[in-house]
Amino acid sequence: MIYSGISHYADQRDAFFLEDGRLRIRIATSRGDMSAIYLHTQDKYIGLDRADTRACYKMHRYASDFGHDYFSADIDIPMAGQFKKNPDMLCLRYFFEMVDEAGARIWYGDSRFFSGEPGDVEAMYDCPLISRREQTFHVPDWAKNAVVYQIFPTRFATTEKVPDKLWYKAPIDWDDDLKGNLQGIIEHLPYLKELGVDVIYMTPIFRSNTSHKYDTIDYYSVDPSLGDQDDLHELVDKAHAAGMRVMLDGVFNHTSPDFFAFKDVQKNGKASKYYNWYYLDSDDISFGSETSKPSFQSFAYVGFMPKLNLSNPETASYVIDIACHYIKDFGIDGWRLDVADEIGHSFWKKFRRAVKAVNHDALLVGEIWHFSPDFLQGDEWDSVMNYAFYKNIASMLCDGNLSPSGFLSQQGFLNGQYHSAVLPVMWNLIDSHDTSRFLWRAGGDKRKLALAAAFQMLTPGTPFIYYGDEIAMTGGDDPDNRRGMLWDKDLQDMDMYHWYQRLTFFRHTINALTAGSYSSVNADDDKCLLEYHLSSGEVLIFHTADGETNALEYKGYKELLSDETFDGTIPGYGCVLLRKA
Amino acid sequence: MIYSGISHYADQRDAFFLEDGRLRIRIATSRGDMSAIYLHTQDKYIGLDRADTRACYKMHRYASDFGHDYFSADIDIPMAGQFKKNPDMLCLRYFFEMVDEAGARIWYGDSRFFSGEPGDVEAMYDCPLISRREQTFHVPDWAKNAVVYQIFPTRFATTEKVPDKLWYKAPIDWDDDLKGNLQGIIEHLPYLKELGVDVIYMTPIFRSNTSHKYDTIDYYSVDPSLGDQDDLHELVDKAHAAGMRVMLDGVFNHTSPDFFAFKDVQKNGKASKYYNWYYLDSDDISFGSETSKPSFQSFAYVGFMPKLNLSNPETASYVIDIACHYIKDFGIDGWRLDVADEIGHSFWKKFRRAVKAVNHDALLVGEIWHFSPDFLQGDEWDSVMNYAFYKNIASMLCDGNLSPSGFLSQQGFLNGQYHSAVLPVMWNLIDSHDTSRFLWRAGGDKRKLALAAAFQMLTPGTPFIYYGDEIAMTGGDDPDNRRGMLWDKDLQDMDMYHWYQRLTFFRHTINALTAGSYSSVNADDDKCLLEYHLSSGEVLIFHTADGETNALEYKGYKELLSDETFDGTIPGYGCVLLRKA
Repeated sequence: MIYSGISHYADQRDAFFLEDGRLRIRIATSRGDMSAIYLHTQDKYIGLDRADTRACYKMHRYASDFGHDYFSADIDIPMAGQFKKNPDMLCLRYFFEMVDEAGARIWYGDSRFFSGEPGDVEAMYDCPLISRREQTFHVPDWAKNAVVYQIFPTRFATTEKVPDKLWYKAPIDWDDDLKGNLQGIIEHLPYLKELGVDVIYMTPIFRSNTSHKYDTIDYYSVDPSLGDQDDLHELVDKAHAAGMRVMLDGVFNHTSPDFFAFKDVQKNGKASKYYNWYYLDSDDISFGSETSKPSFQSFAYVGFMPKLNLSNPETASYVIDIACHYIKDFGIDGWRLDVADEIGHSFWKKFRRAVKAVNHDALLVGEIWHFSPDFLQGDEWDSVMNYAFYKNIASMLCDGNLSPSGFLSQQGFLNGQYHSAVLPVMWNLIDSHDTSRFLWRAGGDKRKLALAAAFQMLTPGTPFIYYGDEIAMTGGDDPDNRRGMLWDKDLQDMDMYHWYQRLTFFRHTINALTAGSYSSVNADDDKCLLEYHLSSGEVLIFHTADGETNALEYKGYKELLSDETFDGTIPGYGCVLLRKA
Repeated sequence: MIYSGISHYADQRDAFFLEDGRLRIRIATSRGDMSAIYLHTQDKYIGLDRADTRACYKMHRYASDFGHDYFSADIDIPMAGQFKKNPDMLCLRYFFEMVDEAGARIWYGDSRFFSGEPGDVEAMYDCPLISRREQTFHVPDWAKNAVVYQIFPTRFATTEKVPDKLWYKAPIDWDDDLKGNLQGIIEHLPYLKELGVDVIYMTPIFRSNTSHKYDTIDYYSVDPSLGDQDDLHELVDKAHAAGMRVMLDGVFNHTSPDFFAFKDVQKNGKASKYYNWYYLDSDDISFGSETSKPSFQSFAYVGFMPKLNLSNPETASYVIDIACHYIKDFGIDGWRLDVADEIGHSFWKKFRRAVKAVNHDALLVGEIWHFSPDFLQGDEWDSVMNYAFYKNIASMLCDGNLSPSGFLSQQGFLNGQYHSAVLPVMWNLIDSHDTSRFLWRAGGDKRKLALAAAFQMLTPGTPFIYYGDEIAMTGGDDPDNRRGMLWDKDLQDMDMYHWYQRLTFFRHTINALTAGSYSSVNADDDKCLLEYHLSSGEVLIFHTADGETNALEYKGYKELLSDETFDGTIPGYGCVLLRKA
């Protein structure tokens, strides 16, 4: 028995309510160490002797990573108990009984190990139910497993006349003005609908000096180059009418120096009533250079992005009002939150309370590049841009430094550790406006892009399509990853487009795919195969390297993605979805 | 290398600012697995190539438990860097390099393992510094390592005439009216001062129907049997004048049914404007019985303790106003918070913000019987009643089911896992009004009580004296643990009292004791010895079982607690503090 592998926190991390009213309790143990774990529960305030409140649950393994197996059990509260007339329980007391592979048995409660069942209530964990229930993590139903499409508005589509030479320029520069606009997006809503998109997420659209608009001058105006408020209304309304949701990009960490508050500070210094809206290191404002920082805190030391002081309640209120305004007055469905991990937890808690009070079903997605459970406990964001997924896919398929079993381990870490509520709404991306395009990183190998898309689409979570990936666009690091969308049919890879469509079709058709409901999952590092056996009977196989593999032991199957009889082969970087014929 | 033992969360749990401005980074590994761990850091926004922001720290082991070693390093921010003129860093990026006992080396970043130094910033952890610094956990300096004395006001002292037969009654009952009062406490302030007490904590003093007063009728009145507001003012002022602090007991989880709001609900049902101040299961109010619950949520199903709904902002405001009132208008120094874990996190965050705005140095101590890191991240409480300490001491000394090395492991778990800020303010108790007295649990063996007190007094944290323990009072479970204080000199064990005084003297004299600054700590389970070698040169030894041990290898030492030359023996359940003569 490996004690150091055993981990349970009796708080929101490992003992939380599901939206269906059940309480989920989780524990991690060293990988392969335990053959069975039992969860013993009882009412805290009805003593040990009242056997009729006691219950025992066999826990099931729901994930594994490089070091751990993760187990959970879901408990119906109220449990059958003594007080049947009014069965609400105040506080659950519990402990674990663990049996290792050698048959050794140990009991674990309140972070202590026992060689027999604890006879003492002090040796158990407590879970106070009323307060824990009030913390239940609600994520919007509409967002679960939805397909998200990221649009970079200045480069996606335009209603202006722009010469092809400019629109299709590659590589492209930050300052190239392609005149993309909201009416351009509106014109292409049918294209998105046809692709199978459920949610449109646009990078910033407010008044700004740049093509990316991550330096806001006025949060209450659409940038004139993109259109105006009426265009935004029209876009949201038409998307809704087509059954799609719209998310905006909330750049609240910093502003442009041309934002009214910063301008006031520049003009009036300490006398400005906005002086505490920023973090000024000196009253002589300087914007920095290649070798010196700005004289104020800013995003990434960038002089044109002074950082807002959101620990100042006045500034926080101003920003929260913006977030509520677009939800209430424009009907947008949520916010993607830029540089969200560089803003503090207490701001995000206030932010969530305010936004969810306006629309309980607004979605909040933080930009963070790391494993981030602290923001995902149910009182800040609903989800994050899941760069961990991107890293795992890219490491395995592009960089060749993550094996299939390593991939399963890394994904298992996320599944094991994150709150269950967030997994269906995680934005599983393979690239974005902040990375090179996946196809670029894949050295132009379209099989890899197709396979990465299959991972996104045929496993749980929210597939995130960066505009143009579906027609095999490429581009290097920022700014070259922000080229004009390929609307010329001759430039579009329609095979890729139809592949995306087929993937979308099957993810909507076979529930076990998005539910992640598997009878088994296997990785074969020698053959570079990943096999997911769905509880619904289908088998999903990924071939994660080059070369043919003919030895697949599946005979008499139909391959659903190609709609053909399975010939027993899977090509290099191929994917098959098999169903018994 | 045992992967499952490696644990690091790049959030407030394992990467937090200390009050001195340094950033502490921690990691846990499997016990005995690693011979060295190095922390590599760099500026996030100045790329990998800018070598001059990079630094490397050798981490040191600060705790060990049953399964883990815990390592940490403290980093001066700003680090020497490129931007020397304005060296504030926005975000620290870091990864770990670990060398195991066999010499194998692995790198760990962003929850992934690497066989070489990560060449990719995506493989590192991030710590955004501005927001993390704003989360710095502040605990009041005055509370660190202070000696706390718990008073049960109705039973501690009285200025009334009460016959000895009643005052010294044993066993005692809840309803016995001993007429203890605040003037009685005031009379005995010199006694407390002489004992070495720094902080007086009184269980509830507000108007109530019971001897314990955990069922409040009016938070704005002192219970008439105890005195009035003037008495409270006098007590606080005189304690302050004597250099002692005063803490009250905040019973905010529930009220008496005679509290105005509950009475209004009883009278007016759904029409009451206080209807949502409670959790009513039915509009027919019933108080329950032995076999049925009350028709409302209450503390522990107790009919005379209806539970307040503090997720109702109006109720929360009412309660927070009370907490602020006594700090502002009476000058009390903080609150011990009753049943605090059954109230939700969002209430406590609001509560802390409000109370600390009135007095930045007010102390907040939650009642919770379990390991509770979720309440101790710097934005809710400062400390808890450390029942884990009580369990460890009682298991080792009274129940005989925890060995010296097991004790070190369990204490190591707390030291390893809790935020560093809380350790000096943890209320390390060995009993309270909610347990039998320690001497009772020890079967009357005063050596065990004396030894338990030595553990409290000579190791880091806040020694917590339940009134009368210092003169060897005894008493069984509630209510018998609440007997009248033994003021009759013939009943007081003055040896015990002087022992407590000596302990207090040395804890104030030898800083290494309260700092927990050890060159080594050893447990000998065969001889039942615990040895702490202080960095200041002294040796502190506990003998945790009965029987003589003559084989101690310390010659030429003075024993400080007895002020005698050390004779090489330590009695059963004895303690010696040795200094080279």
